[in-house]
Amino acid sequence: MSDAPATFTRDLARYRDLTTSALLDGIPAGGPPYLYDLVASYPSRHGKGLRAALCLATCEAFGGTRARALNSAVAIELLHNGFLVHDDVQDASEARRGGPTLHRSHSVGIAVNVGNATNLLALRRLVDNRATLGPERAAAIVDETDRMMRHTLEGQALELAWIADNACDLDDGDYLRMCLKKTSWYSFVYPMRVGATIAMGPRPADAFTRFGWYLGAAFQIQDDVLNLTGHYDRYRKEIGGDLFEGKRTLMLIRVLRACSGPERRRLKAYLAAPRTARTETDARWLLALMERHGAIAHAKAAARQLAGAAMFEAARTLGPVPDGPARRFIHDLVRYVVTRDA
Amino acid sequence: MSDAPATFTRDLARYRDLTTSALLDGIPAGGPPYLYDLVASYPSRHGKGLRAALCLATCEAFGGTRARALNSAVAIELLHNGFLVHDDVQDASEARRGGPTLHRSHSVGIAVNVGNATNLLALRRLVDNRATLGPERAAAIVDETDRMMRHTLEGQALELAWIADNACDLDDGDYLRMCLKKTSWYSFVYPMRVGATIAMGPRPADAFTRFGWYLGAAFQIQDDVLNLTGHYDRYRKEIGGDLFEGKRTLMLIRVLRACSGPERRRLKAYLAAPRTARTETDARWLLALMERHGAIAHAKAAARQLAGAAMFEAARTLGPVPDGPARRFIHDLVRYVVTRDA
Repeated sequence: MSDAPATFTRDLARYRDLTTSALLDGIPAGGPPYLYDLVASYPSRHGKGLRAALCLATCEAFGGTRARALNSAVAIELLHNGFLVHDDVQDASEARRGGPTLHRSHSVGIAVNVGNATNLLALRRLVDNRATLGPERAAAIVDETDRMMRHTLEGQALELAWIADNACDLDDGDYLRMCLKKTSWYSFVYPMRVGATIAMGPRPADAFTRFGWYLGAAFQIQDDVLNLTGHYDRYRKEIGGDLFEGKRTLMLIRVLRACSGPERRRLKAYLAAPRTARTETDARWLLALMERHGAIAHAKAAARQLAGAAMFEAARTLGPVPDGPARRFIHDLVRYVVTRDA
Repeated sequence: MSDAPATFTRDLARYRDLTTSALLDGIPAGGPPYLYDLVASYPSRHGKGLRAALCLATCEAFGGTRARALNSAVAIELLHNGFLVHDDVQDASEARRGGPTLHRSHSVGIAVNVGNATNLLALRRLVDNRATLGPERAAAIVDETDRMMRHTLEGQALELAWIADNACDLDDGDYLRMCLKKTSWYSFVYPMRVGATIAMGPRPADAFTRFGWYLGAAFQIQDDVLNLTGHYDRYRKEIGGDLFEGKRTLMLIRVLRACSGPERRRLKAYLAAPRTARTETDARWLLALMERHGAIAHAKAAARQLAGAAMFEAARTLGPVPDGPARRFIHDLVRYVVTRDA
């Protein structure tokens, strides 16, 4: 649930169902076991489909049709799912969208392969764009994809490095830079730039990048807050998994800066220990520490501020666009992002 | 060492050095730690560079220049290294080219990310082909890449499924089908088809596919034999790692068909156990069993036969090509593949 209007929820579901059917229809039948059958696994578990919806709505708002953007929307959703499969391996996560993660239900080897196959099917969709969008726009979308993947891998590398090196002296700026690369670009900047490219041609305005960047940061912070405070049956991820993982969220970074003496020593030792050595007692203590130091309130306030900035950029980006359902959808998405509780 | 002439070894080293320099020069400087720095790790450990050499030589033999093929040769070598990084994670291998595997020196999470970054840098090289080869040949090479990656992932899936399901009733045909997909296509068929596309235009003759397929099967079987019988300081992989891994080689498939009663029961139990539960005593017993049932001699004979078939296809493929160093290099490659001892 969120404060976004009912039309938003309805439109989001429509965009999602359109993309999911096209995605599942395009997965090759047959082939060896544990490959294409498992490519369908995460997409069948009903994610929100935000990224594909944003691409379709942007294309429509700027004068294109959703039919022309569908191929790219499917590619976006595939890349997202391929990224999740690998990300779950990388973070040793246990649950995803109400089911076990793929490396847990099968094996790390199979999960790595399925993630690669998911990415390959996305690449093929981008190749198919040549026929439907012509060579110039198809090539521009490949270039956007290359750029997005570079940002995503660099963001992922930053986060993995923080854990590998047990980074304990980060600040909010470090977090926001990581977030721009790891979340904003592939979840918001890229879908909008692709939708705009399909509607209007290569090299869309920088306003899309700024809008997506603020929106993505607000989204990721809200996601991290929900990981700590949400309820499993709504949110359907591991609750508090971030605590066990030692993930450098805005909350953890705040606590590391705020606490001192024995608290800080205990926290650093907790973060230095291997994940399997961290107990539930430790994780509860860390959560209480975050509450005591106002870290969760700080993160919520930051998400609201970033959503405000996104709202401002949205008004600019959508300025020249006549009113209509797609424009309203993008506008409402900002409200949805920070008021959702799942 | 191998029976191939000294000119072959010299030319292989030249092709390799050319590709390796271009590859390393193209890795982005800077960026977050544990990303581009580690992309350089496996390529710096001096592989043989066979795949890139085959692409360059094919382009030259059919009237192109190596300068026009260099970008694609680098992409081929990057895709090979990205594949090795992921393959080592998938097989839980310990050593690669004389050093620890990347997931062992760092972490599974970092290795998955570095493999993805390596693949992305390859993709970018293929995008760069637009400027140097024109849109038609560049698009044809992307299509060849898509097809190759599909085969590779399906071959990898087959092999992972055999281990996951503890397949004990395979035959030589199953092995050869897996090998076509997992090894032949990306190591031999693809480099030749790309080299031929650069020299002559899209859709090269099927003869390249047949030639590469036999050559790849001979290569892989020889590789599996060397894993069992080679010496670490020459071969620089884990000796006998395949035994611990339960890898379905032609030798293991042969032994599974040849042995019966208590031997077969012990072998199936060994293969059903997790890798970590397999002892060196078990592995030595399995090696002795392979020798007793003539499985290694059978594999060596199969490799020689396949090399013979490759030789026949090479003569056909290279038939219209005038004599010259690149033609001779491709010809000698066949001899190299089955007589190498490292």
